Amino acid sequence: MDLRSIIQKKQSRQALAKDEIAFFVKGCSDNSLPDYQISALLMAIFLKGMNQAETQILTEAMTQSGGVYDLSVYGKKCIDKHSTGGVGDKVSFICGPIAASLGIKVPMLSGRGLGHTGGTLDKMGAIPGVRTDLSKDEFLNVLEKTGVVIASATSDFVPADKKLYALRDATETVASMPLILSSILSKKLAGGAAGITFDVKVGNGAFLPALKDAKALSKNLVRMTKKAGRAANALITPMGQPLGRAVGNLIEMYEASETLLGRGPEDVTEVSCRVAAAMLILAGAEKNNESAQKTARKQIANKEAHKVFLDMLRAQGGENVDSILNGFSFKPAAVLKAQQSGFLSKLPAKAIGEAACRIGAGRLKASEAIDPQAGIYCCHKEGDKVKEGDDLLYFYSSLDVSEIVSSVAGLITISKERFSSHSRIIFFK
Amino acid sequence: MDLRSIIQKKQSRQALAKDEIAFFVKGCSDNSLPDYQISALLMAIFLKGMNQAETQILTEAMTQSGGVYDLSVYGKKCIDKHSTGGVGDKVSFICGPIAASLGIKVPMLSGRGLGHTGGTLDKMGAIPGVRTDLSKDEFLNVLEKTGVVIASATSDFVPADKKLYALRDATETVASMPLILSSILSKKLAGGAAGITFDVKVGNGAFLPALKDAKALSKNLVRMTKKAGRAANALITPMGQPLGRAVGNLIEMYEASETLLGRGPEDVTEVSCRVAAAMLILAGAEKNNESAQKTARKQIANKEAHKVFLDMLRAQGGENVDSILNGFSFKPAAVLKAQQSGFLSKLPAKAIGEAACRIGAGRLKASEAIDPQAGIYCCHKEGDKVKEGDDLLYFYSSLDVSEIVSSVAGLITISKERFSSHSRIIFFK
Repeated sequence: MDLRSIIQKKQSRQALAKDEIAFFVKGCSDNSLPDYQISALLMAIFLKGMNQAETQILTEAMTQSGGVYDLSVYGKKCIDKHSTGGVGDKVSFICGPIAASLGIKVPMLSGRGLGHTGGTLDKMGAIPGVRTDLSKDEFLNVLEKTGVVIASATSDFVPADKKLYALRDATETVASMPLILSSILSKKLAGGAAGITFDVKVGNGAFLPALKDAKALSKNLVRMTKKAGRAANALITPMGQPLGRAVGNLIEMYEASETLLGRGPEDVTEVSCRVAAAMLILAGAEKNNESAQKTARKQIANKEAHKVFLDMLRAQGGENVDSILNGFSFKPAAVLKAQQSGFLSKLPAKAIGEAACRIGAGRLKASEAIDPQAGIYCCHKEGDKVKEGDDLLYFYSSLDVSEIVSSVAGLITISKERFSSHSRIIFFK
Repeated sequence: MDLRSIIQKKQSRQALAKDEIAFFVKGCSDNSLPDYQISALLMAIFLKGMNQAETQILTEAMTQSGGVYDLSVYGKKCIDKHSTGGVGDKVSFICGPIAASLGIKVPMLSGRGLGHTGGTLDKMGAIPGVRTDLSKDEFLNVLEKTGVVIASATSDFVPADKKLYALRDATETVASMPLILSSILSKKLAGGAAGITFDVKVGNGAFLPALKDAKALSKNLVRMTKKAGRAANALITPMGQPLGRAVGNLIEMYEASETLLGRGPEDVTEVSCRVAAAMLILAGAEKNNESAQKTARKQIANKEAHKVFLDMLRAQGGENVDSILNGFSFKPAAVLKAQQSGFLSKLPAKAIGEAACRIGAGRLKASEAIDPQAGIYCCHKEGDKVKEGDDLLYFYSSLDVSEIVSSVAGLITISKERFSSHSRIIFFK
């Protein structure tokens, strides 16, 4: 078989056959195809699309392209959760322990951050001693012992996606529905959970800003996961402003801990309990969305979920976890103050995520190091009444942040009229 | 500048700016852009196109990407000729000497064959001693001395096209009008002639089989060449059956020599004199197409052009040229005979070109060697009346040709009804 004939079919918008997709995925996994041919086919797929059947075949071929995790021993009570990525998104650290505290197994294979949205593994790694590069045995041991584990996949995991993702990033072919779906789902399916709850972010800080696109992605994720023989549901949650007040790594772990102690920002608590409820429903532990949310909130109130959270951090190597999470008391390098009085009407997630990245909390290239203590704290959220001179943002960094502070300042809006955010959470069964 | 933003523009069918195209061409020439990014942009251009202004800018940037030939000393009496490639196409060896015998300078930078259409340099090189890898000085010396030279370009010539052509071949992006135009024209413009006659082939043996596409290509070639400040005209000539009777290397040189002595097949004589006439008109040596054709035929009748042909071969190193071209008397490895009586109605150029290639006259990979004596001779042409058992094709080869002979046999048609070919030559001023 020759990739050229496959490229030719896709140029004329023909559907690729199963053996053609298998040839392509194998060539991506074992490096038998040159990058320039792969990227030509990626561009043809980007511009000409793939139908549902092709996308499903591509996803399943990618899933099987490397090592997979077998978690069938836990039956249907093994639920993973996936977020499409947001600024200040620390939901995994809250919903995972909530579900685990109720007997669900929550295996979360995650990634490091690139660009403005931050990475779950970077946040975990901000706690001294915590390791996220677990072997498969270590991963399974933590899962068995604490009910929840958050780590990177082993190096032989979905090799086709590693190749394709790197090339998509370099060739502007990331924003393609079949390529997005197969990338997300191949990793989730190879992760081995019996069910998956998807948290699809929408708004300026999300990779799909438009609600229409977020809905399409949610429907496709649920449909395809079910077709692959797993349970699935999805929530669309707002990402116009950062989720919660903390944006960074250690600062977000602190906020997650506070949320699990019942002292977190209302939006983080709300989204985390909605996601946890969706996971409980998938596992068959709850039938009804409202009662599931009540159960989730109860696990915060009784501190059971917080206990699981600390257990997980310790099981992954965390040292002095209690004292570290006891308070975040660094001195900000800069404070941005309100330049007028009124209602905070725009606290743009993307700009704040990018600023946090640039002051050390994230990376623009995979090879860069991050500063676990760097980050931004939002003293106010959209809709808050503020007075001229009030603190708006704290910048934590060891770098000179003055230029970044003024660029963010220009993007924040305070209006005279009362402002209330209209974003709502949408649930897809 | 980042190629990703350029790719993104082309994905949404926007026109690229001059500095963006310059950045791309420079990156192809100096290897500063990775192949996978170049091929992604090639696919986007293939699927979304380029407008006339972009194609012109791309062509001129490619023209200037390496060394160029300066032939301005000859003024407007310096005419190049380009064929889009055909089976049995030996026109260069005839029209070039005809024009040179009338005082025109004919500098022809050419290529080696790949696939079914054969290569001008392989045909030249079939004459013992002939060198086609001339330095720039050698090239200019032969041109000055004999009036016509046929050789490869120097290694620094249009490097952007070398990179792009290899990637287009591997990624199914050859058949794109802006990419075809820029590839052909950048090399012709860098070649330095004041005017260019294009011989665009049409029919099953041409790379553009449809007349509509051949017309579009001809018009674009003439328009763009004029816009680049050179004179241009074009002919569309038939390529349904092989041109002439000889398909191969030495066998075609022999047929070219015979044609220049007035003993060639009528189609080769006709096309060569039409092309030569178009070149004479471009050079201002003739005003009128009919009188130009008469002049060309006269240079055959008086053997002046044949003398220039021999001079050129000798100037490029040819040994015993006279005796070698005195007769082609190899014994065929196989003879294909007519299986019924009737009129030869289909002698498919592409199949015969591919067969010649497979029996040693051509190559499928750039690294393969060819057999200068291998080839196919067509004893009859389309429209000829044949009897069962008549010789149709002679196969010259040192390989076992039986399988190839029977596969070609199945593609030749003899019909009961009288058959006449309706292809005509079209001239574009």
